[in-house]
Amino acid sequence: MSPAAVSLNGFARHAVAVDVVLFTIQDDVLKVLLVRRQRAPFRGAWALPGGFVGPEESVDAAALRELQEETSIGNVYLEQLYTFGDTERDPRGRVLSVAYYALVNWQRMQLRARREVVSDAEWFPVRRLPGLAFDHRKIVDYALERLRNKLNYTTIAFQLLQEEFTLTELQGAYEVILGQRLDKRNFRRKMLQLGILRAMNRFKASGRQRPARLYTFTETKVVKLQEKGIIVPF
Amino acid sequence: MSPAAVSLNGFARHAVAVDVVLFTIQDDVLKVLLVRRQRAPFRGAWALPGGFVGPEESVDAAALRELQEETSIGNVYLEQLYTFGDTERDPRGRVLSVAYYALVNWQRMQLRARREVVSDAEWFPVRRLPGLAFDHRKIVDYALERLRNKLNYTTIAFQLLQEEFTLTELQGAYEVILGQRLDKRNFRRKMLQLGILRAMNRFKASGRQRPARLYTFTETKVVKLQEKGIIVPF
Repeated sequence: MSPAAVSLNGFARHAVAVDVVLFTIQDDVLKVLLVRRQRAPFRGAWALPGGFVGPEESVDAAALRELQEETSIGNVYLEQLYTFGDTERDPRGRVLSVAYYALVNWQRMQLRARREVVSDAEWFPVRRLPGLAFDHRKIVDYALERLRNKLNYTTIAFQLLQEEFTLTELQGAYEVILGQRLDKRNFRRKMLQLGILRAMNRFKASGRQRPARLYTFTETKVVKLQEKGIIVPF
Repeated sequence: MSPAAVSLNGFARHAVAVDVVLFTIQDDVLKVLLVRRQRAPFRGAWALPGGFVGPEESVDAAALRELQEETSIGNVYLEQLYTFGDTERDPRGRVLSVAYYALVNWQRMQLRARREVVSDAEWFPVRRLPGLAFDHRKIVDYALERLRNKLNYTTIAFQLLQEEFTLTELQGAYEVILGQRLDKRNFRRKMLQLGILRAMNRFKASGRQRPARLYTFTETKVVKLQEKGIIVPF
């Protein structure tokens, strides 16, 4: 075969961006991490951390790099969310965006805006977001839907808790993410049925109520409940 | 702001491909649609239908166009699967691939290889795939995992059936996709509990056994069982 036959000459090339949606719970509120843009377009507007994929860089690596470069946050397990491939996303021209997301414990993150590239970095309540650059509002909404779905068939919410936690704390995490109250008896019964919680012989004082039992999670990572044949339909 | 500040000059550009994983059930076997490549690289090898995204084309549109151009199949609801963004996927250079998938009823598809672009197009059993071009084997495996997961929380399997079907036929579709036998009583009980099947007053003769009752699906599209608060943990 001729060399010409195996080159990429003649095929269109596209600018490819990555955008990262980091969720956390702070003060019983579900929040998302935003950075304030220093450059046009949308200069001064809030946006998701992100940027362009380099020529010899994997898309996954670009997402981690951009997050770190703008917010100092590293060591996050990012999951790919979706690729936004419409042609009109960016006023500068055609830019694809591969979006990633994660649910993190903000207390374990070292958030620090890198002023060389962004003016600021802050956690915002998902229910009171400022106007966002590009189609980032749509990306946040999509990520939120995925996160809520995921709550139903994985143990992703456990990432937010301390190593030992009460069932009330666990239920609280679910309620904040789902944005709705859950029935306490029903929640406890289903959670305990899963067989992934170990009851400790330790208790946590909780105001005027009797001390609440502490639990640990028997797994060290996020479990797909489906694969264990168990599902939590709250 | 200066025009230079809002251009995309200086950012890397990437070739972006789409690849389509179409699944069907034929003769009680789960199959995937492959095309035989006419051009280098991997000339003569089997591959997923797909190709490059055009300069002014949305990624979704490119997936539908490539499927149609190579196999004549149109009118499929493709769901985005994953973006494969490693740098070493293609011997010609850096190519991202946005993969899509769907589960279809092959009898409703007009499969015809378009000889201008591919040498052949055929359904292959997922358990006996030929060597595939690029990382397409990995993409098929990933799609299969997603499809099996999806079976647990949506009604995607119903797309394979006729408008009226027996519970045995429905169970058969699940078994073929999951690649394992399911307990008949358990399957029936859970399926009927979902409240998405309407029992007809019609029956289907089935050999020497007594006629089996026919059912219809009460919804006209794929239902997310989670959103209805129901999950099928087979």
